Amino acid sequence: MIILGSTGSIGVNTLNIAKKFNLNIDVLVAGKNIDLLNTQIKQFNPKTVVIASKDDIPKVNHTNVSYGEEAILNAIEQSDAKTVVNSLVGFLGLKPTLKAIKCGKKVALANKESLVVAGAFIDQNNLIPIDSEHFGLWYLLQDKKIDSMTITASGGSFRDYSLEKLKNVSIKEALNHPNWSMGNKITIDSATMTNKIFELLEAKWLFDTTKLDAIIETKSLIHALINFTDGSTTAHIANANMQLPISYAVLGRVDENILKHIDLVEVGTLEFKKIEEQRYPIWGIKDEILKNPNLGVVINAANEVAVAKFLNEEIGFLDISKITLDALNHFHNVNPSSLEDIFAWDKEVRAYCGS
Amino acid sequence: MIILGSTGSIGVNTLNIAKKFNLNIDVLVAGKNIDLLNTQIKQFNPKTVVIASKDDIPKVNHTNVSYGEEAILNAIEQSDAKTVVNSLVGFLGLKPTLKAIKCGKKVALANKESLVVAGAFIDQNNLIPIDSEHFGLWYLLQDKKIDSMTITASGGSFRDYSLEKLKNVSIKEALNHPNWSMGNKITIDSATMTNKIFELLEAKWLFDTTKLDAIIETKSLIHALINFTDGSTTAHIANANMQLPISYAVLGRVDENILKHIDLVEVGTLEFKKIEEQRYPIWGIKDEILKNPNLGVVINAANEVAVAKFLNEEIGFLDISKITLDALNHFHNVNPSSLEDIFAWDKEVRAYCGS
Repeated sequence: MIILGSTGSIGVNTLNIAKKFNLNIDVLVAGKNIDLLNTQIKQFNPKTVVIASKDDIPKVNHTNVSYGEEAILNAIEQSDAKTVVNSLVGFLGLKPTLKAIKCGKKVALANKESLVVAGAFIDQNNLIPIDSEHFGLWYLLQDKKIDSMTITASGGSFRDYSLEKLKNVSIKEALNHPNWSMGNKITIDSATMTNKIFELLEAKWLFDTTKLDAIIETKSLIHALINFTDGSTTAHIANANMQLPISYAVLGRVDENILKHIDLVEVGTLEFKKIEEQRYPIWGIKDEILKNPNLGVVINAANEVAVAKFLNEEIGFLDISKITLDALNHFHNVNPSSLEDIFAWDKEVRAYCGS
Repeated sequence: MIILGSTGSIGVNTLNIAKKFNLNIDVLVAGKNIDLLNTQIKQFNPKTVVIASKDDIPKVNHTNVSYGEEAILNAIEQSDAKTVVNSLVGFLGLKPTLKAIKCGKKVALANKESLVVAGAFIDQNNLIPIDSEHFGLWYLLQDKKIDSMTITASGGSFRDYSLEKLKNVSIKEALNHPNWSMGNKITIDSATMTNKIFELLEAKWLFDTTKLDAIIETKSLIHALINFTDGSTTAHIANANMQLPISYAVLGRVDENILKHIDLVEVGTLEFKKIEEQRYPIWGIKDEILKNPNLGVVINAANEVAVAKFLNEEIGFLDISKITLDALNHFHNVNPSSLEDIFAWDKEVRAYCGS
């Protein structure tokens, strides 16, 4: 197995599964957390290691270390491993996804941006999503006639803040997600609800439907619901822990216990809320985006630039959505007809947003 | 189709489905509600009608009316209909179930007592349960490894009463179920939680497992949950309306809309509670009953006698469970080895309970 992003939360959980089921690790790709990477190298003994920066190479305890995007693509191409777990963050995960598919490998995809920006051009035959909501949908899918699907949102770090208070939130507050421990980018995307727009787009490509919606379930215990034509709804309920979707993605069928079951009596109550556009301005474009998923490349690029600026203390929290919505307004006619177009539009939107 | 208990809530809902899907009604069996029966006769034009009492025959607008248990069994035997919906209440539903199976008919079974008392002796090949919880379990069943199953209970009419107040509740209060509109017997059984004990026994026979439990979900919107070995739980969520399980029971696959979907945002919150033995003394025998399902015939007979006495104002509400628990204590060695034994024990337990 190849793990792209081994020191992030998905990577660490994937390695937990690898250890539990004695799976071989061929390639580890990580960023700046060299200490953790060295621990992982010692434990899993990969053939190849790729990191982000040339400067860090001397610190890595491995004889075969390279760095940068090209090295990632080479490592994928040269490895005999049949599975790539792609948990890279953002647009930079797209090329590795494409490369892995081209090499005939199975892609366990936590890099949702790959589908968000280029879903139309990605062969899904070897692609398995790692995302609790989509896993939940997949899990519930049966031979019954489906009407629509609903995924849940936690509401993010600022779900219970006053709208007034939202104007001056700090980065630290933004990174304090109520239910999930995740990387910075996705935690911010969760606070703006952009993450849920992404997930709806992802679901559009995975399940070939636009009858999709999301609601807030404050405890992140129900991940996905399917509404069947007959009037039934089924729900997938599990603890907020990525080891379950990861296990299925890498193992196929899972007959062993991965997580402790939810004890609903202990949970006591579940609460459901509407996603309000007032609190989450990005939610206003949901229908437009589902109608024209080509715009995925635009919102992703603008959002990546905006989140980076927020984390760099250049803009306030509410500016993130503003930048994305402004870019969408400017680039609403984008109609990519090839992967080359996707890369070109990504570049142009970033330039427009002042990247 | 043959409908046993056409004027009860299951019967009425079954006729709604029959109307919607233009299904033929061959036999109507009803009790004392002759007015409604006459309306049903006019609308569905059955070949045969059976009622409870000889005295009511002149009031029925039909040329082929008979009465009593033997007449029900004859009607089943003589009808060409392939499906029997059995929504008779109590032990008296057992013989019609057995007769229908013997005649090779499909049994859509709302008479849970058939399985409660004689599950070990009932051929289930042609049997489909009509019970929202079991329907929910069936609906969720997939090719995943199952750990255990949970059904939900509303908690019944007295869920929120103080224990002190329970001593002197009236029949009218007992019949005021919070979520479901059902017949008297099942509403009382719901208030004592005996109904849920029955349903666990039913599930034991239907799904061949004793890893079964129940919890209270106060709004009766989640009907059943399956806990898979992997740690996932799936839930079946639907409005409290029997037309859905009935549709599946009589139609097989259902590709049409039967109910409005649940809007969880509108629902707002769901609440889960433990079933407390203090409030529901019958719950104390759950494990014993699942371990020895032969005792079903004992608790059913005792409970039928006790509920009849309560509805007849001979005993108080809390006496119902007392009578059942006392009978169970007395007859804990019951070990029926044939259907004849079941009928014999039923008679003996009733006599003991002062029927």
